[in-house]
Amino acid sequence: MMEEVEAVVMTGPGCALERRAFSAPSAKPGGAVLETIASEVCGTDVHLHHGRLSGVPYPIIPGHVNCGRVLETNGLLLDVEGRPIETGTLVTFFDVFGTCGNCWHCLVAKAATRCPHRRVYGITTSAEDGLLGGWAQRIEILPGVRVLPLPEGIEPLDFMGGGCGLPTGFHAVERAGIALGDTVVIQGSGPVGLNAVIFARLAGALRVFVVGAPKARLEAAKRLGAEDVLDIGEISNSADRIAWVRGRTAGRGADVIIEASGNPAAVPEGLEMLRDAGRYVVVGQYTDAGDVILNPHRHINRRHATILGCWGYEFTHLHRALQMMAYHNARFRWRDLMTREYRLEDAGQALLARIIHGHPAETRACR
Amino acid sequence: MMEEVEAVVMTGPGCALERRAFSAPSAKPGGAVLETIASEVCGTDVHLHHGRLSGVPYPIIPGHVNCGRVLETNGLLLDVEGRPIETGTLVTFFDVFGTCGNCWHCLVAKAATRCPHRRVYGITTSAEDGLLGGWAQRIEILPGVRVLPLPEGIEPLDFMGGGCGLPTGFHAVERAGIALGDTVVIQGSGPVGLNAVIFARLAGALRVFVVGAPKARLEAAKRLGAEDVLDIGEISNSADRIAWVRGRTAGRGADVIIEASGNPAAVPEGLEMLRDAGRYVVVGQYTDAGDVILNPHRHINRRHATILGCWGYEFTHLHRALQMMAYHNARFRWRDLMTREYRLEDAGQALLARIIHGHPAETRACR
Amino acid sequence: MMEEVEAVVMTGPGCALERRAFSAPSAKPGGAVLETIASEVCGTDVHLHHGRLSGVPYPIIPGHVNCGRVLETNGLLLDVEGRPIETGTLVTFFDVFGTCGNCWHCLVAKAATRCPHRRVYGITTSAEDGLLGGWAQRIEILPGVRVLPLPEGIEPLDFMGGGCGLPTGFHAVERAGIALGDTVVIQGSGPVGLNAVIFARLAGALRVFVVGAPKARLEAAKRLGAEDVLDIGEISNSADRIAWVRGRTAGRGADVIIEASGNPAAVPEGLEMLRDAGRYVVVGQYTDAGDVILNPHRHINRRHATILGCWGYEFTHLHRALQMMAYHNARFRWRDLMTREYRLEDAGQALLARIIHGHPAETRACR
Amino acid sequence: MMEEVEAVVMTGPGCALERRAFSAPSAKPGGAVLETIASEVCGTDVHLHHGRLSGVPYPIIPGHVNCGRVLETNGLLLDVEGRPIETGTLVTFFDVFGTCGNCWHCLVAKAATRCPHRRVYGITTSAEDGLLGGWAQRIEILPGVRVLPLPEGIEPLDFMGGGCGLPTGFHAVERAGIALGDTVVIQGSGPVGLNAVIFARLAGALRVFVVGAPKARLEAAKRLGAEDVLDIGEISNSADRIAWVRGRTAGRGADVIIEASGNPAAVPEGLEMLRDAGRYVVVGQYTDAGDVILNPHRHINRRHATILGCWGYEFTHLHRALQMMAYHNARFRWRDLMTREYRLEDAGQALLARIIHGHPAETRACR
Repeated sequence: MMEEVEAVVMTGPGCALERRAFSAPSAKPGGAVLETIASEVCGTDVHLHHGRLSGVPYPIIPGHVNCGRVLETNGLLLDVEGRPIETGTLVTFFDVFGTCGNCWHCLVAKAATRCPHRRVYGITTSAEDGLLGGWAQRIEILPGVRVLPLPEGIEPLDFMGGGCGLPTGFHAVERAGIALGDTVVIQGSGPVGLNAVIFARLAGALRVFVVGAPKARLEAAKRLGAEDVLDIGEISNSADRIAWVRGRTAGRGADVIIEASGNPAAVPEGLEMLRDAGRYVVVGQYTDAGDVILNPHRHINRRHATILGCWGYEFTHLHRALQMMAYHNARFRWRDLMTREYRLEDAGQALLARIIHGHPAETRACR
Repeated sequence: MMEEVEAVVMTGPGCALERRAFSAPSAKPGGAVLETIASEVCGTDVHLHHGRLSGVPYPIIPGHVNCGRVLETNGLLLDVEGRPIETGTLVTFFDVFGTCGNCWHCLVAKAATRCPHRRVYGITTSAEDGLLGGWAQRIEILPGVRVLPLPEGIEPLDFMGGGCGLPTGFHAVERAGIALGDTVVIQGSGPVGLNAVIFARLAGALRVFVVGAPKARLEAAKRLGAEDVLDIGEISNSADRIAWVRGRTAGRGADVIIEASGNPAAVPEGLEMLRDAGRYVVVGQYTDAGDVILNPHRHINRRHATILGCWGYEFTHLHRALQMMAYHNARFRWRDLMTREYRLEDAGQALLARIIHGHPAETRACR
Repeated sequence: MMEEVEAVVMTGPGCALERRAFSAPSAKPGGAVLETIASEVCGTDVHLHHGRLSGVPYPIIPGHVNCGRVLETNGLLLDVEGRPIETGTLVTFFDVFGTCGNCWHCLVAKAATRCPHRRVYGITTSAEDGLLGGWAQRIEILPGVRVLPLPEGIEPLDFMGGGCGLPTGFHAVERAGIALGDTVVIQGSGPVGLNAVIFARLAGALRVFVVGAPKARLEAAKRLGAEDVLDIGEISNSADRIAWVRGRTAGRGADVIIEASGNPAAVPEGLEMLRDAGRYVVVGQYTDAGDVILNPHRHINRRHATILGCWGYEFTHLHRALQMMAYHNARFRWRDLMTREYRLEDAGQALLARIIHGHPAETRACR
Repeated sequence: MMEEVEAVVMTGPGCALERRAFSAPSAKPGGAVLETIASEVCGTDVHLHHGRLSGVPYPIIPGHVNCGRVLETNGLLLDVEGRPIETGTLVTFFDVFGTCGNCWHCLVAKAATRCPHRRVYGITTSAEDGLLGGWAQRIEILPGVRVLPLPEGIEPLDFMGGGCGLPTGFHAVERAGIALGDTVVIQGSGPVGLNAVIFARLAGALRVFVVGAPKARLEAAKRLGAEDVLDIGEISNSADRIAWVRGRTAGRGADVIIEASGNPAAVPEGLEMLRDAGRYVVVGQYTDAGDVILNPHRHINRRHATILGCWGYEFTHLHRALQMMAYHNARFRWRDLMTREYRLEDAGQALLARIIHGHPAETRACR
């Protein structure tokens, strides 16, 4: 008799989550099966639930960033160093797969995060194709999916505390090209914003300021090394916030600003906080939350600004971010960034909590 | 008895130009005096006349890019190679001076074009301080102003055909970081746009497309190496223009786009013409011509775009652009880009012609 | 009855080439078979014959850069734009294959040309594995090998005139980061050197000088745009050659130097020709031809030099170089760079000619 | 009656230091006079004493990196933010001056550390021109010399603990372009090497290894964040040292290596410790200590190496390094890197100590 496992299925935008039974998967040649330990509940899941992403093949099993234990492999499963990953190992995996390595974007533009063949667990995978999302008792690792053992000293909840914000924040900081001694402003204190604080500090920022909310996240930002924080709940006027940054940067604005807020209005506001010839990274606009008004003369041309969109992340970002976490976990205590844990059957509640409280910028995990 | 020379003075925004007599200047120690041969009439002069630039110390003598003959020096006048410049030499000079080399922008940010002490002949110099603009029979070269002899084979009108668009276009192309084989779109066919066509071709672009007007400028663009041109007078719908570019770029958009149009609406339109992970330079918004609506998700974040404001130019841009002109003049015939010559006393008419015809994107010279 | 085709086999270092009959290959799923039109005889083939490369699985069928006509496909064969390549199409292919896309070099360092799984047609492929080199009547295209149709207007001999020097020179110029207006010296006038002249000009070099031999190659360099050339047969003293370059560069040395000579002694000599803070690319040392003496103080540290090794090439280099060839063939006439054609049965003679004349830096094709 | 002050004069290579009386200087317009608090004794001073630098205008007053108290100004003395520096302020100053801002190196190449007009206090300034070195009771600040107030919390001996190694190490790390998560090897544990350890850690290195001597300096390296150190006194065989690094880097070698050893032989050894496509900075070869043997094929071309000479430092490096010191002084305790203090009259002994012990890689201060 076939073993059955349970998964939480999002059948469509706005529909209640359903618990469904699936046949336990077995590993395809070159693949593996994980027993799920924890799966992130992130802002993307809320967007998925609201139907704000295009091309999602509902029904889906959400959960793109995950930790599990290797139950079964079919043939050698290797890490990026070529070492075999044994059954029983605690692992995560790079949620992006299917990047073709053959198309113009991959080969000529070397813009792999824009490869049209790219797929993502828990987002662009249908529940009809199997257990390809983390809100399930098992996760099927397809052949070619890159598995990363958790480094020594990193437990699943440490990793979940970083969540998808870990490699996303890492990528944003890489893209920002922070120079030793730069003053950096982070807009947004959600998972991406807080990881950006961490990596901005690790990349050589002298001073880091955070503009966000709520208080608890700003307290976390301070603990992670932010010199000062601005609570947008308290200073609700954009001009005042701009003045707050300029007052801390000799009137010039910051060298680097990373927008990780999810709010389109942050973009023109952030450009006013930027010094001439500064660098501005936009990593918080993963869904279309609306248009903004910009002034090309003042915000771009005269400012000699460099504005850098930052989409997705690559294996290298996850790999290196995880190594950095292993090295610096005692200092940054990623686990404490997780706001709450839910059991798998309470996934709907997890999602709801985010929605009700209106602060999707928290990191949660289901397990 | 003191010699007198004539200059054209712009006394204020909207005021008719006046011809005034000035005492002939003599060279300060380390400085020089030029006999003016030609002075550009460019879009900035029209903006000056409309009062669209802030901080202009009217009355001014317009004319920031100029050619002249060295009448007099006071001490050794050296070129950048350290060679003396003799009386009688045909020269131009770097119109920007006063960049302090001592402030935070100069020393720490290395953003010299944003030095607050930076001044520009014919724009931020008052007629009360002397003959510091080209619409005059003589030009005073202040100590520290960098003088460049015209290279062998380059005559004043060749140089005027390039005008301020020469170093501006050069800088924009440098900032774009064109890679060998890139497909480039230039928005705008004025002096900056056409020089951007030239330097994009010289920097390794495979294909260059120009979106602009009027016909004569687009014909010039083709002569300079544009593969195809779009006349915005004929295709007046933005969506059609975007489709035109995408149709020529495998549906992906261009690798690099340089906005040199002066029209803020070109910015959102250009971002729709850009491929994922492409580079977009904004060099056409030298005055505040208004706001635009952008979508941070679609135009920046998901596109993984790099958007680069480009302000002013540095000595190196003028120096190298002039050397490139000397080498490639037979191929590009800069002189033919000049639309008309005026006598000094007809400067008002030159300005008017631009204004009336509504195509400020032409290069003219007064002499 | 099985069809037979002929190939030229290099059985080991120093052994005479052998003509052997092979069974005509048939396309594997996802692969193809080409009817060979031409195959390059390049310096690497001479090195292979001398046994100067390690890890070569003799016996081999030489010929890594090739042109052919598609005889047979097995399933859809797509170009990088996703367009099907029909039987009968004239094509070349990226000789490098097997790059794994999964190892640390591919994923983390993004140094694909150093992937340990990388293989090359005609160099690291054994004749026992099939027709995986161009000195044969047929070439088997393995699944995953990237095929490029020759662009319209490019005939096989145009492409062979470029040979492997085309993407190698392209890569070297990309690595050099030539800025608009740079003065460039190319050391070596073989296929890589001459293609480097072409791409240096296309990438914005103001002045290009070539130091090489023999006369015919230097004449070609001049035709391709070199301002001046130095014949090392005539100026055999290193100090004189350094003085020659310095005399043409205001005593400072060149902004960029590309070493494509194959002679280790070119490296210290070239570093003496380099200006302070210049960039020096080493692309001519594909085999170990010996050690050199350098002075770390003078050549590197005080010079603030940037020295860039350049190994192999990637698909993007071949793809873009081929597009540039299609655009600029009338100007550069690559075909004329080919020194001689041989029939397949005269391959040994082709090899010998190179060896005897001692100028391996020529491009030949067998067909 | 004229006030007299004392200075230590190095009259020529190999000559004993002399104590001489000088008239107390007064500030020139735009300049200032400092009362010396401390002056570094660094490796350069030993080289000066040995006559290993060219162009030194003996007799000189050594001491290029200094701290003092402003005794007198003549007109406003401003810091880089434009704030006045009052009499009595504790300051250091950028020892490099005279960079012309007008020559080809300054304006076109933007290679200011190679400006031929560049002068350095205590090295290229003659004692006949005044108190232009720190081994004196007073230091004259010439007009145009950039003065930096010590940040709050930084005392003169903290700054002296960094010494010239502070901005030099900062510059080397900037030039290395360390990416988040890189593994870095520092060759040399002198002042430059130890500051490079600090800044490599601050710039995002995951792991830092140090190859140097003696034990005390290696202990310091560990305290500053080196994961492991190799004592060249114990492992004296180059092959063993290379194996030591490769054994800690998956056999591949390090991503980045900074040579700060002063020993030419470190260069070929370091290149063997470098991974393919890695970056190698040479900052330890400030004098010509001899030639080395390199293999262009193995060390440069096939390795696809990037080798970066690093000469001098700019104002921005000193300015930002000082800000980083102020922020991170509790963590790194620069003061503890100083090995010993001497009174001014014992300067000869300070110099001798270095020479006798054969470890010039220590930081001392005279005061």
